[in-house]
Amino acid sequence: MKKKLTIGLFGFGVVGQGLYNVLSQTHGVKAEIKRIAIKDKSKTRTLPQELFTTDKTEILNDPSIDIVVELINDHEAAYAIVKEAIEKGKHVVTANKRMLAENLEEFYELQQRYGKSILYEGSVCGSIPIIRNLEEYYDNDLLTSIEGIFNGSTNYILTKVFEEKKSYADALLKAQELGFAETDPALDVEGYDAKFKLVIAIAHTFGVFVKPADVINIGIDKISATDLKYAKENNLSIKLVARAFKQGDKVFAFVAPQFIEAHHPLASIRNEYNAVLVEGAFAEKQTFVGKGAGSYPTGSAVLSDVSALTYGYAYEYKKRAQHEALSFSNDLRVEAVVTFEDQHSVSIKDFETFKSGYAANGKQLLQGILTLAQFKALSERDGVSVLLAANATFSPIAESVPEDLLAS
Amino acid sequence: MKKKLTIGLFGFGVVGQGLYNVLSQTHGVKAEIKRIAIKDKSKTRTLPQELFTTDKTEILNDPSIDIVVELINDHEAAYAIVKEAIEKGKHVVTANKRMLAENLEEFYELQQRYGKSILYEGSVCGSIPIIRNLEEYYDNDLLTSIEGIFNGSTNYILTKVFEEKKSYADALLKAQELGFAETDPALDVEGYDAKFKLVIAIAHTFGVFVKPADVINIGIDKISATDLKYAKENNLSIKLVARAFKQGDKVFAFVAPQFIEAHHPLASIRNEYNAVLVEGAFAEKQTFVGKGAGSYPTGSAVLSDVSALTYGYAYEYKKRAQHEALSFSNDLRVEAVVTFEDQHSVSIKDFETFKSGYAANGKQLLQGILTLAQFKALSERDGVSVLLAANATFSPIAESVPEDLLAS
Ligand SMILES: NC(=O)c1ccc[n+]([C@@H]2O[C@H](COP(=O)([O-])OP(=O)(O)OC[C@H]3O[C@@H](n4cnc5c(N)ncnc54)[C@H](OP(=O)(O)O)[C@@H]3O)[C@@H](O)[C@H]2O)c1
Ligand SMILES: NC(=O)c1ccc[n+]([C@@H]2O[C@H](COP(=O)([O-])OP(=O)(O)OC[C@H]3O[C@@H](n4cnc5c(N)ncnc54)[C@H](OP(=O)(O)O)[C@@H]3O)[C@@H](O)[C@H]2O)c1
Repeated sequence: MKKKLTIGLFGFGVVGQGLYNVLSQTHGVKAEIKRIAIKDKSKTRTLPQELFTTDKTEILNDPSIDIVVELINDHEAAYAIVKEAIEKGKHVVTANKRMLAENLEEFYELQQRYGKSILYEGSVCGSIPIIRNLEEYYDNDLLTSIEGIFNGSTNYILTKVFEEKKSYADALLKAQELGFAETDPALDVEGYDAKFKLVIAIAHTFGVFVKPADVINIGIDKISATDLKYAKENNLSIKLVARAFKQGDKVFAFVAPQFIEAHHPLASIRNEYNAVLVEGAFAEKQTFVGKGAGSYPTGSAVLSDVSALTYGYAYEYKKRAQHEALSFSNDLRVEAVVTFEDQHSVSIKDFETFKSGYAANGKQLLQGILTLAQFKALSERDGVSVLLAANATFSPIAESVPEDLLAS
Repeated sequence: MKKKLTIGLFGFGVVGQGLYNVLSQTHGVKAEIKRIAIKDKSKTRTLPQELFTTDKTEILNDPSIDIVVELINDHEAAYAIVKEAIEKGKHVVTANKRMLAENLEEFYELQQRYGKSILYEGSVCGSIPIIRNLEEYYDNDLLTSIEGIFNGSTNYILTKVFEEKKSYADALLKAQELGFAETDPALDVEGYDAKFKLVIAIAHTFGVFVKPADVINIGIDKISATDLKYAKENNLSIKLVARAFKQGDKVFAFVAPQFIEAHHPLASIRNEYNAVLVEGAFAEKQTFVGKGAGSYPTGSAVLSDVSALTYGYAYEYKKRAQHEALSFSNDLRVEAVVTFEDQHSVSIKDFETFKSGYAANGKQLLQGILTLAQFKALSERDGVSVLLAANATFSPIAESVPEDLLAS
């Protein structure tokens, strides 16, 4: 019933080597790596040199290769590889969230057109089987929200800064050494990486394809000493939270740092661990926790996809059939805490509804309701840090009053 | 590709009605309930009377019925129904953990023989998709342990007793009113229900069929005021923990109450929530949290199984192929806390290694290392409460020294 599959692997870095190791330690998966494409011919490798190539056609044009596993750190080259692999009749497994998020709708169509599968469990929260569960297990639940800690390096940094009082720079360096950080750390700390994963998760939670550029992301790079002090004084922690939820026929989504109460399920998620909270009408609240990055945890997610291909698995994007007319929107109000030092940076008038504030020793804090657009705009001002309030509520900005009502 | 399936349902209690409701609120599942068998003809029902029958042959002998969903509260009758359904060429979905645990090996063989599927996600930790993930997602990981809170009513009771200082009896009554408790509450509070689930999980984690009678279960029914006091003084909580782990070629498993430190992932699992911690060589530590009982959460797990049958899903018991010679064993040492009032109940000599103890106001507490057999024996003495110590370690009792070494 199961077929022995031949793999052409692109990339032999943190995840590529992780896959190689987990595949060779397990006996259940009928799959074998025939060739590995890398970038730099001169690097010494832990495997025989003849396995490696810098010529991608040696994999893409090899008819004996059934699966292309794409694990490189270049999203543009990755896009070309994935597309060509599918067009040449190969299945693809990839962990490249940026490339996926930017091209998901096209990849959905390519899969239909060529009858080949693109699997990407490793791209969202590393070892946590969230895509598979959304697709298969919650296939008929009416899901209302998904949220969580989707980026391992920022969570690692926040943990070190909070618990060990490490400096931000030291913590980032350590995350890079340990292999969780993206090659370009700005992708992690500015919230892009979490956003890419969120965009992928949205397709499998709500059946909607959203462009990453349409989703607001605010990172942890501007978190201030005032924020840390406020957190400590109120027994809060700070987490970078990615969330998407449905209200009426709209899907709202964004990534932003948030103050988190001590008993909240995300409060206890430390270091490179990720957590995903899913809420549905039937299964109610579900939490998944696991390592979000790292060689073996991500390699094991990739291995699971390879294993699934041995029995012909493909995502059906089941939620697309379920929801008819959901559309993405940013018309939302959020409750935010804004901190800054220069008193001219922010004023009460920047808020839709101002709630409270204080100033001490030149440090200022204002709290109130902002539209998502105002929230984003404030985050871009120099010397200003914005976070969602603890237990922030979110309310859609009501549709404008219908014309005929105004006329009467 | 997907086939419309016709369901014959047995039982229309908490879970049966939950399934009916979730099925009618979702549109993705191509399945319809044709007939419902119940026990008591005279009860008024929320659905038209002609849907119901007390004659099981009206379902089992109906060739138009593809799936029998078995949700009754009588494990012996359930066994006969499941067996006959399979023999008559129907797939089965059931949530009856006791019946499954007691007959799992036979059901495994029946599935092979008749080429029909028995699915039972709802039987283990309600809404948490643990069986499906063990089978599919961790199919090739080398799992080393599974543990967690597997019983919703005892966790509800412990939460109420600890947080709201409710009496044990009041808390139990409330759990029954809310529909989480088994019809016979002894199954919950004495740890049998958690054990049945553990036995099922072991088959999918390690590929080993274990008889429930061989697995030691100690419940929460003898927890003493001294235990509660000790917990409070040491900032601990008490949870009923089911666990199984592999060491060498042995699988160890048991259910027992345990003191839990405040930062432990199980400490924050409250009320009827369950949690499952899985540890493997590749994915490392994974946690799943969700409602372990209740009408919709359990109904949604049953719905997921029905949905899986629409695309021909069957468990492959993949771990049976992976591990060759694992066998179950109780030859283990554990660290325990033993409390009692009558000083003649327990002595230091009952321990393999005594560690510490105290007596005050007629309340006594002894802590030390016991074999699992001693632990179980102490738990059966009148007026004696036994719990695993916080962060208890477990060490296999070494094999006896080989004969030839003794001879030399
Ligand atoms: N690290 C994690 O924990 C993690 C977790 C989840 C997802 N991911 C994703 O997994 C992917 C790989 O990440 P990584 O951390 O393993 O990266 P990495 O350690 O930097 O390794 C990148 C690998 O890609 C190769 N490469 C780059 N450009 C190439 C090209 N055009 N053709 C062939 N090979 C090329 C490199 O070759 P050389 O060896 O010759 O330099 C290197 O082997 C990324 O998409 C990342 O976002 C990573
Ligand atoms: N409750 C939970 O949250 C939960 C969670 C996980 C698993 N489970 C399991 O799910 C199963 C059902 O539990 P439940 O809580 O739904 O039980 P319940 O509320 O007590 O309902 C039991 C149902 O079974 C019917 N029944 C009993 N014997 C029968 C027979 N011989 N033939 C046909 N129908 C019969 C009863 O009929 P009448 O209506 O005529 O009395 C009733 O409708 C049990 O195996 C339980 O362990 C329950």
